[in-house]
Amino acid sequence: MKIKIFTTGGSIDKHYSLRSSQFEVGPPQVEDILREANVVFEYEIEQILAVDSLEIDEDKRRRIVERVQADPHSHILITHGTDTMVHTGRALVGTPGKVIVLTGSMQPAAFKHSDATYNIGFAIAALQTLPQGVYIAMNGRIFDPQRARKNLEMERFEED
Amino acid sequence: MKIKIFTTGGSIDKHYSLRSSQFEVGPPQVEDILREANVVFEYEIEQILAVDSLEIDEDKRRRIVERVQADPHSHILITHGTDTMVHTGRALVGTPGKVIVLTGSMQPAAFKHSDATYNIGFAIAALQTLPQGVYIAMNGRIFDPQRARKNLEMERFEED
Amino acid sequence: MKIKIFTTGGSIDKHYSLRSSQFEVGPPQVEDILREANVVFEYEIEQILAVDSLEIDEDKRRRIVERVQADPHSHILITHGTDTMVHTGRALVGTPGKVIVLTGSMQPAAFKHSDATYNIGFAIAALQTLPQGVYIAMNGRIFDPQRARKNLEMERFEED
Amino acid sequence: MKIKIFTTGGSIDKHYSLRSSQFEVGPPQVEDILREANVVFEYEIEQILAVDSLEIDEDKRRRIVERVQADPHSHILITHGTDTMVHTGRALVGTPGKVIVLTGSMQPAAFKHSDATYNIGFAIAALQTLPQGVYIAMNGRIFDPQRARKNLEMERFEED
Repeated sequence: MKIKIFTTGGSIDKHYSLRSSQFEVGPPQVEDILREANVVFEYEIEQILAVDSLEIDEDKRRRIVERVQADPHSHILITHGTDTMVHTGRALVGTPGKVIVLTGSMQPAAFKHSDATYNIGFAIAALQTLPQGVYIAMNGRIFDPQRARKNLEMERFEED
Repeated sequence: MKIKIFTTGGSIDKHYSLRSSQFEVGPPQVEDILREANVVFEYEIEQILAVDSLEIDEDKRRRIVERVQADPHSHILITHGTDTMVHTGRALVGTPGKVIVLTGSMQPAAFKHSDATYNIGFAIAALQTLPQGVYIAMNGRIFDPQRARKNLEMERFEED
Repeated sequence: MKIKIFTTGGSIDKHYSLRSSQFEVGPPQVEDILREANVVFEYEIEQILAVDSLEIDEDKRRRIVERVQADPHSHILITHGTDTMVHTGRALVGTPGKVIVLTGSMQPAAFKHSDATYNIGFAIAALQTLPQGVYIAMNGRIFDPQRARKNLEMERFEED
Repeated sequence: MKIKIFTTGGSIDKHYSLRSSQFEVGPPQVEDILREANVVFEYEIEQILAVDSLEIDEDKRRRIVERVQADPHSHILITHGTDTMVHTGRALVGTPGKVIVLTGSMQPAAFKHSDATYNIGFAIAALQTLPQGVYIAMNGRIFDPQRARKNLEMERFEED
């Protein structure tokens, strides 16, 4: 089973720009994470966007949905900012013939302490084992995008 | 769903002893990994052994099997050294009413570069999604312990 | 020889705020760095400011100078943002009876890859060995604040 | 000022061998440390030995001394295991026309938590600022090799 990975930016890919002394979305971190984990499955990474997920408007979201639905692979991982991850998940509900898992991280993968590596590992196993559908994989749980939300106060995802 | 985690030692838990200038099995690392990942599921950690898995003889293996089978939880994660992980997996095959996943790491969790955090994330998702049975979760794949083996040359797990 | 450490913020202390999805100046990192290095000298840490050094105006700079000059210790380390580190260094030139070393980092100490720990180690040795005066300790070199500048293009300090 | 760096092994360079499931002395870590710190001084790295310092007998120690004394550079850093660092330091006392600093680390540089990067930064500044002589740079202090010793109990260096 080959896994297709689409990246869209988000906290997971943020790095520190010396020029601006600001945090910016940099290159996708999922590749380094998979290399360090020495995984043996086949995968292919493609960048759709490189933005903070608060900047994903309806146009950009449509672009993600079109790219995912047009893709020939049946197993798709999307790395995404956490703020609008559930919105993109909902927009993908109903995609036929695919298992789609969205993940990301609260703390950038470039940090010493981050949930990024755990989340990628967790999402990949979810992708390999779940039936067709769309899922949010965050905080060590699999959520239904229709019922999930990010609890800003608690800094984690939860479900009704 | 509450997850019971049994630890037995192995590379994942190795640290550097200043006294002996040697690598030794230290305290279980899975707790720190789950805390840093900010997981929201319930879990409980219990140490059965703290040894290199080459030191797990038939007596020690029987002790692991008895503890796992006597445990009331239905979802069980076992962290284990990689050298004899498949042997312990095979000894657990047939355990009724449980999903059991074994994982560990090639490089100690204490290292900057390690597969430990990825593997724990991966194993936890496998545990939540797979049907009853015994599984090895390593290198980003789920293996059947009856057919899996560690390829020392390639430094990864594979299946016939 | 007891070392007094004043912190003022800067990239070295930046962390990622989940609330704002922005980089912000957090608690001083020098304490963790010294603890992990297991240093045996005596020291005392005091926070004067917690800001990006571009925000240090003449009032704030005067406050730093007054606090440093009023301090009874003869050996003073200042952690500071890199953008105006030389300005604060120049404002301190002429302080009688003290060795003063300013350092910081280009990449936050919270990152996996950062110059923070190296720079703190380097600055502490400079402080212990140099004669009275004010010094910038960055990029593995000791600079005279009167002649040093940050080369934004090259992302490092240099001297005429 | 160009710095010559001789490496001899020791805990600082230990990594985890998957073949033997043992800690072994690997390639010198000082190069990665200096690259990550983005240092601007010139340096050259040369490996003399790659052993645990308990294995440095009189023959090997003589080899280190000969190489250091025959080297044309005036500023020399030696990375060395901590167990016999003071012995090598004493053997080098009296070397004319050179500043020689020995350092290493208690915890391997490959570990998430290690004193290696701090110690290298500290030793480099000591090398640039101290007068001719031989010095041990450990635990954030500069020691005289004639009076220093490793306190195994306390896991740090101290001086009479």
